[in-house]
Amino acid sequence: MKLANYVSGRWVEGGGPGTALVDPVTGEELARASTEGIDFAAALAHARAAGGPALRALGYAERAAALVKVADVLSANRKEYFEIALRNSGSPEGDAAVDIDGAIFTIKYYARAAGALGAARYLKDGELARLGKDEGFQGLHVALPLRGVAVLINAFNFPAWGLWEKAAPALLSGVPVLAKPATATAWLAQRMVEDVVKAGVLPEGALSIVCGGAGNMLDHVTGADAVSFTGSADTALRIRGHTALLRNSTRVNVEADSLNVALLGPDAGPGAPEFDLLVREVVREMTQKAGQKCTAIRRVLVPAAARGAVEDAIVAKLGKTSVGNPRNKDVRMGPLVSRTQQRAALEGIAALKREARVVFDGGAEFKPVDADPAKAAFVPPTLLACDDPLAARAVHDVEVFGPAATVVPYADAAQAFAIARMGQGSLVASVFSGDAKFLADAAAELADSHGRILAVNAAVGQSHTGHGNVMPMCLHGGPGRAGGGEELGGLRALAFYHRRAAVQGHVDVLAAIAAGAADFKY
Amino acid sequence: MKLANYVSGRWVEGGGPGTALVDPVTGEELARASTEGIDFAAALAHARAAGGPALRALGYAERAAALVKVADVLSANRKEYFEIALRNSGSPEGDAAVDIDGAIFTIKYYARAAGALGAARYLKDGELARLGKDEGFQGLHVALPLRGVAVLINAFNFPAWGLWEKAAPALLSGVPVLAKPATATAWLAQRMVEDVVKAGVLPEGALSIVCGGAGNMLDHVTGADAVSFTGSADTALRIRGHTALLRNSTRVNVEADSLNVALLGPDAGPGAPEFDLLVREVVREMTQKAGQKCTAIRRVLVPAAARGAVEDAIVAKLGKTSVGNPRNKDVRMGPLVSRTQQRAALEGIAALKREARVVFDGGAEFKPVDADPAKAAFVPPTLLACDDPLAARAVHDVEVFGPAATVVPYADAAQAFAIARMGQGSLVASVFSGDAKFLADAAAELADSHGRILAVNAAVGQSHTGHGNVMPMCLHGGPGRAGGGEELGGLRALAFYHRRAAVQGHVDVLAAIAAGAADFKY
Repeated sequence: MKLANYVSGRWVEGGGPGTALVDPVTGEELARASTEGIDFAAALAHARAAGGPALRALGYAERAAALVKVADVLSANRKEYFEIALRNSGSPEGDAAVDIDGAIFTIKYYARAAGALGAARYLKDGELARLGKDEGFQGLHVALPLRGVAVLINAFNFPAWGLWEKAAPALLSGVPVLAKPATATAWLAQRMVEDVVKAGVLPEGALSIVCGGAGNMLDHVTGADAVSFTGSADTALRIRGHTALLRNSTRVNVEADSLNVALLGPDAGPGAPEFDLLVREVVREMTQKAGQKCTAIRRVLVPAAARGAVEDAIVAKLGKTSVGNPRNKDVRMGPLVSRTQQRAALEGIAALKREARVVFDGGAEFKPVDADPAKAAFVPPTLLACDDPLAARAVHDVEVFGPAATVVPYADAAQAFAIARMGQGSLVASVFSGDAKFLADAAAELADSHGRILAVNAAVGQSHTGHGNVMPMCLHGGPGRAGGGEELGGLRALAFYHRRAAVQGHVDVLAAIAAGAADFKY
Repeated sequence: MKLANYVSGRWVEGGGPGTALVDPVTGEELARASTEGIDFAAALAHARAAGGPALRALGYAERAAALVKVADVLSANRKEYFEIALRNSGSPEGDAAVDIDGAIFTIKYYARAAGALGAARYLKDGELARLGKDEGFQGLHVALPLRGVAVLINAFNFPAWGLWEKAAPALLSGVPVLAKPATATAWLAQRMVEDVVKAGVLPEGALSIVCGGAGNMLDHVTGADAVSFTGSADTALRIRGHTALLRNSTRVNVEADSLNVALLGPDAGPGAPEFDLLVREVVREMTQKAGQKCTAIRRVLVPAAARGAVEDAIVAKLGKTSVGNPRNKDVRMGPLVSRTQQRAALEGIAALKREARVVFDGGAEFKPVDADPAKAAFVPPTLLACDDPLAARAVHDVEVFGPAATVVPYADAAQAFAIARMGQGSLVASVFSGDAKFLADAAAELADSHGRILAVNAAVGQSHTGHGNVMPMCLHGGPGRAGGGEELGGLRALAFYHRRAAVQGHVDVLAAIAAGAADFKY
């Protein structure tokens, strides 16, 4: 089976042998992907010429209604998606739910939020502003949908959510989407797009997909388009440095590597509820999706005195985690998505071992349940500990995209913040403390170098949404190494797909413009 | 005289012969600029280590008070600045005022706006948001000052305003500034910084300046810094494509070339007040600062029927504009800033002539008043007319950075908008019409491809702030060819120098964080 590309309103099979998509448990080939022969210039032009005007002719609420139908189509086919996630990503049911149900939840959230913008087709950003003595002449800011294409280049770890968390704000903004999922797990994204296209719930040209290499796609991107990339820092560099994008001032949003931290407050020793909450969260982040989340905890910062207790508590839980073939109902953690990823993760762990010692890795006797290690892509949950974090480099630099984390002791709060910063910009820091002032101070201290701070005390111990879980109400993205991007964050997500402009003129003219706009409030 | 650089808290003269700054009227050498031997890594590190913490220790209102003192220092030395502008830029008094008084006005505006943020040291962006069933656990967005340096790489045409329109929002945000003015006219910026530093009104490290080449400066820029560039598209490409900036996800704001339009509405024939208002504006934009403004009108879109009348009216006014040595009080328009710029402008006009005919250029007998054409950098005001704008390329592509504009006829409103878009993203479009609906429609139609729309009817004919005049209350920047940047726009300008983050936690913790923040409203 070759995954069909959907471009220019047609289903097109790419040429040549293509690239194989493989079951990471069995090694079985599931499908092939190819973009050979795809006319990317025509694909983008069709989206701009057909999809853009059709979407922009709708108001926000009408686009929101279309998105609700998208969510309905996906919900109706949910079981098939879980089966694809099981086969192509080796996902246990819980991991698949994070991706698939997370996608549906995110679409519905955005549809509800944007539905409140009503019949308007553009946004008003702020109020009228005086510019001089004459009150009759003022200024107003508006935001109009980009008249281009949202080019979404996505990562292999979230084939469903990664597509829709970007596509939903784009489509609601009136901007058509061309998606290019990561090839290794493209099947799920492709099937979802196929179902949505066949259901006819979006205007023609609003949604296209290519599975396989990007070819010369970026050569045809203009200044009206927007490119959103999630993946490795190396690929980010190639995309962001692409001549066409640089020359056309194309908007690019990047979400790349991140050495996220979980920070145990100085007050939260063994016995404190926040101690247990941190341990639970670290284990969840290491094992959920086998640690293949951009937001996963990579560094566990703990008071030096609590270090042994933290390590013991994490190890106790890791030892009870059943790793193996997700078809076995006892299994909690599956494989990485491919042997390539397995190799990369093991190389990363080897790099960390030069600066950190292994606390737990399942030992030489580690063997995945119901799977052949010679064919499968498993990596055992691996906890390391670093004795000299201020001298370490790899611990703060090397993102092992798998079930690995390093315990890092700190002397005092200032040093903990400094160590967190050594990640050079991260997506998330979670802070566990019973001291409300410490939580607030930590947030203010870490917020310029982290896209999100999760402050956990006992009061939210059972209700918080998790360190690694990306909620559409909150910004996702981080500075520096994390890519410098901003996604989600409520209706803020629409800003990337709109262009802001100032209008100056008589207040009566501005009032007419404002009357046609929805308030851009969040 | 060699302009002293101010870096790492010291005045340092660059090595070697440096680059000459020249009087564009007389050809006299005025000063030299060199950054040879400057340790850019140390300069940036000093700003980060000394200037940043000192600024961030202040609240917004305290920073605003410091900015008021900066404005006072500049006001006190205003006369000297006009003399430098006369000598180094060949600026008549009115042109110098746009730059110098514009700078002081902008600083004062920002100081007033940011002063209202009070004692807070970070911003709150929006309100608390529910994330789940438990009302106790919510999310809040904050914006913290970048802990880096604002690297301001500026253009030659606004040595004063160009520096301070960026430095004011940066300093108010708590971010230290390293300025690199364009060498040809760096004297004025350097003198202003010298006066401000010597007055001791800013913390040490808050303000540095280098005059001359950028050397390896950008190699030392990190992900916490922000680079703001105004200038040519070619240089923008080099800056934006710089490996260090790409690798560190450094924020870059670019304001580059722009083929701005003035659009005469279909209703506004000869005799209509808006007809006269357009003519006045075109002539002002062609001659003020000898057309050396990024925002100047380059294309004059007129109904085909009105074309002859528009050309005649503009020519009549151009013919009365006295061009020459600004030391002569009758002179209204001075030279370009250098012979290099003169050559570039004449080459650009030659390119336009291949697609457009000359309507006015002063004729073969053009001679600047009180100046030797062999030494001076004059270009006569030049009006062209293009017969086939849909087939033309240079008219929409080549920005002549001087006193030149092209009249472009259109058949109907849709075609006018399409022609405006052929600029592929511009800073400004001004629309002149007595039809309020046309003005509102044009704004909505052009706002995604222009950073600012000025809608002029008779009601604001005498009070509007001008096509080319950048007001700090309104966004400045444009998509595509114009660089894709956003500056100014009220307190929106602070966003570039802050990093937004989501904080999730118990509402009591969030309330404590919110209590320390100023509302980011504009």
